[in-house]
Amino acid sequence: MNIIPIVQILGFLLILLSFLMTLPVNLLVFGDTPDWLAFVKSSVVCFSIGAAALALAGRQKHALRQQQMFMLTVSAWVVIPLFSSLPLLLSDMKLSMTDAFFESISGVTTTGSTVLTGLDHLPDDILLWRSIMQWMGGIGIIGMAVAILPFLRIGGMRLFATESSEWNEKAVPRTSHLARSLVLIYLGLTLGCVLTYWLLGMSFFQALNHALTTVSTGGYSTSDSSMGQFDSPSILLASTVFMAMGAMPFFLFVRFIHGQRQPLIRDQQVRFFLRFLVIVAALLTIYRVLREPVDPFETFVSALFNVTSVVTTTGYASTDYSLWGPFAVVVFLFITFVGGCSGSTSGGMKIFRFQLSMLLLREQVRRLLHPRAVFARNYNGRVIGDDIVASSVAFSFIFLATLALVTAILGALGLDLVTSLSGAATALTNVGPGLGDTIGPAGNFQTLPDAAKWVLMGAMILGRLELLSVFVMLSPDFWRS
Amino acid sequence: MNIIPIVQILGFLLILLSFLMTLPVNLLVFGDTPDWLAFVKSSVVCFSIGAAALALAGRQKHALRQQQMFMLTVSAWVVIPLFSSLPLLLSDMKLSMTDAFFESISGVTTTGSTVLTGLDHLPDDILLWRSIMQWMGGIGIIGMAVAILPFLRIGGMRLFATESSEWNEKAVPRTSHLARSLVLIYLGLTLGCVLTYWLLGMSFFQALNHALTTVSTGGYSTSDSSMGQFDSPSILLASTVFMAMGAMPFFLFVRFIHGQRQPLIRDQQVRFFLRFLVIVAALLTIYRVLREPVDPFETFVSALFNVTSVVTTTGYASTDYSLWGPFAVVVFLFITFVGGCSGSTSGGMKIFRFQLSMLLLREQVRRLLHPRAVFARNYNGRVIGDDIVASSVAFSFIFLATLALVTAILGALGLDLVTSLSGAATALTNVGPGLGDTIGPAGNFQTLPDAAKWVLMGAMILGRLELLSVFVMLSPDFWRS
Repeated sequence: MNIIPIVQILGFLLILLSFLMTLPVNLLVFGDTPDWLAFVKSSVVCFSIGAAALALAGRQKHALRQQQMFMLTVSAWVVIPLFSSLPLLLSDMKLSMTDAFFESISGVTTTGSTVLTGLDHLPDDILLWRSIMQWMGGIGIIGMAVAILPFLRIGGMRLFATESSEWNEKAVPRTSHLARSLVLIYLGLTLGCVLTYWLLGMSFFQALNHALTTVSTGGYSTSDSSMGQFDSPSILLASTVFMAMGAMPFFLFVRFIHGQRQPLIRDQQVRFFLRFLVIVAALLTIYRVLREPVDPFETFVSALFNVTSVVTTTGYASTDYSLWGPFAVVVFLFITFVGGCSGSTSGGMKIFRFQLSMLLLREQVRRLLHPRAVFARNYNGRVIGDDIVASSVAFSFIFLATLALVTAILGALGLDLVTSLSGAATALTNVGPGLGDTIGPAGNFQTLPDAAKWVLMGAMILGRLELLSVFVMLSPDFWRS
Repeated sequence: MNIIPIVQILGFLLILLSFLMTLPVNLLVFGDTPDWLAFVKSSVVCFSIGAAALALAGRQKHALRQQQMFMLTVSAWVVIPLFSSLPLLLSDMKLSMTDAFFESISGVTTTGSTVLTGLDHLPDDILLWRSIMQWMGGIGIIGMAVAILPFLRIGGMRLFATESSEWNEKAVPRTSHLARSLVLIYLGLTLGCVLTYWLLGMSFFQALNHALTTVSTGGYSTSDSSMGQFDSPSILLASTVFMAMGAMPFFLFVRFIHGQRQPLIRDQQVRFFLRFLVIVAALLTIYRVLREPVDPFETFVSALFNVTSVVTTTGYASTDYSLWGPFAVVVFLFITFVGGCSGSTSGGMKIFRFQLSMLLLREQVRRLLHPRAVFARNYNGRVIGDDIVASSVAFSFIFLATLALVTAILGALGLDLVTSLSGAATALTNVGPGLGDTIGPAGNFQTLPDAAKWVLMGAMILGRLELLSVFVMLSPDFWRS
């Protein structure tokens, strides 16, 4: 395999990363930057290695073959988080290598699980870097989902885009235009979120950090009490809206700003997603109101916020929802798997896979009753072929099998059932918090054994890469072809 | 819908049931039968109602239409357990209606969860009746899987039988012959199991009871300590063999005794199933040997027995395996779902569905690498069409969705996460014991709230009916056609 184009692109990404690393120092020029030297050093390291890679690989342009695309995708999601951990390693925090890697992998994959306690007392530059890692991961995911995965036939984007010529002709002419539109929308959403949070009472620093981790559905916060620190229903509602937007298909936003409003408004995936959030929040509200003397409106806002946070795979918490009762614990375990829409910054199994399964089930029940009838599968106004169903099923199977394996390994490392299962789930879906006393919404990943942290890091990257991209590389066929 | 043929068959089944109800008294004519009057009364009630049903429905023969087959299957698995609870209700045990129904539904569905404590001190006739319910359920499942479900295109038997003319022509000429062969094999296995247990040191009464609940993969025992009461590795090994045979496809036994040995020996499902049992047991053995100073051989026997018990959905325990450590707990949770082979007495998701998913995954990985290639799916030497994959996928989806729903309802009723999740799983797969302090292998379903017991009863029947047969009846199309 010719790895020169891969080295070129990784080198380019490292140089981009080196610029992002200067942001915490530049943005906080009048602020609290005790670790400025760590950022400068890290930036220089990234720039040097990136430049060296570019120099070695030469300037010649190469078209990427499929095998190289797999290789590039997987290696980018390992290399970038590893280099992103440099400022954390070089800072005054004296993090172990394991903890620094955990924090940066959890950051760049927009998972949001943290090993740091006492966030409220961390220096601003470190807090901002954590938020920037998630923001950068968010745009990386969208880029990967729109530009690479469709070519690799992974991630279900074929359902929405590549099969249709309308996508190329009417809406946005070329991939580079599309990429620019996506970046502008991402920037616009972030800016809107900063302003909204600021107007609703956050400090500018808090607003910036939380906007970076909201739109990317990341979930890092500036406080151990996460969004609970503000005690403001209007902030929770605003955050709910921006998290939900971060978990919607971004190419529909592109079409929306190009005047095509119907595709977004009528999208079956988006509609189901929004309806699902409201229904689950309503059920939790009813459950809580029946159990305790709580205010129904505030309870609903809190339920909607925390449900949206988990389903969009953000991972903020406004309170320890595991104290809402056993029904809530069960619900939060299951919604950890759901995920947002395809082509968004969110992780998880994704809404459309559940919709396809339901389609298949309905078809199957009809087929049992009318064995000779022919059925057309329609989703979002398109006929869905067996190949798309098969790829969705293969994903679900490999997801659940990996979940079982990761849970078993965590169990073997001594974690109890709830911690193992919810930890494996929250890492594979890139949500953030798990369940139970240790890694629950009020807990922290700090106390886990190092081996468990490494397993979870692997699971986060696997989940971010939609699993199949990694499993393809494990197949002997991959290296033969 | 014409319900006359359904009433006919239910009447016939009730008369059969009334004869079975006399067995505990007849077989124990010199034994401990304090509740003989309860059995006589119950038998008379079943006989009268059965005879009345037959008299009302007349003698005319009707061919069953598909709709009626669904109706019959579902109603038989509700009516027979309900009537089977009569001796328990009328006995001196003073069971509540909920508990009596729970025990008989858990019995007839061969689940094996129990609400009774102090089994060692129960009268023999009640113990024997519990075993007979499971044995009767076992033959009912095989009959349903071979005679009814293939016509309804449910349960995956099409994979193995109906498509192939060889099945009808060479091996066994007609369904009635097939039914007779199946009953003979079931009786033969039971007899072999009784003798083996007896020779290995059980009393005849214990051997009879445990044989009835081993071959049916039921799991009721005569002691609260289940198979642990005998403290004998050879009994555990013998039980392992008979449980495994109860979870193999019975029609392959039919072919085997008709001289066709290859289909059984070469069957991909059976081979995977046996290999799976040994590998999981070996992993658990290694884990335990590394943690504690235990004897490797005894540890392996114990692991193999308990793993086989759960995977075959029998549900015996020789010890409280949840004390083996967190890895064991995780493993026992996941293997609860696996189930035995199709066309056996076992429940669960069934081995072949996992094999089909793996086939699909391998195909998918190849397709990613060679988008234009055409792949033939082969399983057990047959080409597997998209329709069979779709029905397997639909089953898995509805299974997991039902699992989530039942878990959530149990959570809402106040059960903790581990009890809700493992309780829902063990009921839907007809295994028996759950996990956690309450319903774990050392526990009991007695202390659950009544509402939770009813939910679990529903889940047991749903699981036994392979879910789809029930969901078909929920579709408006069913009642229209």
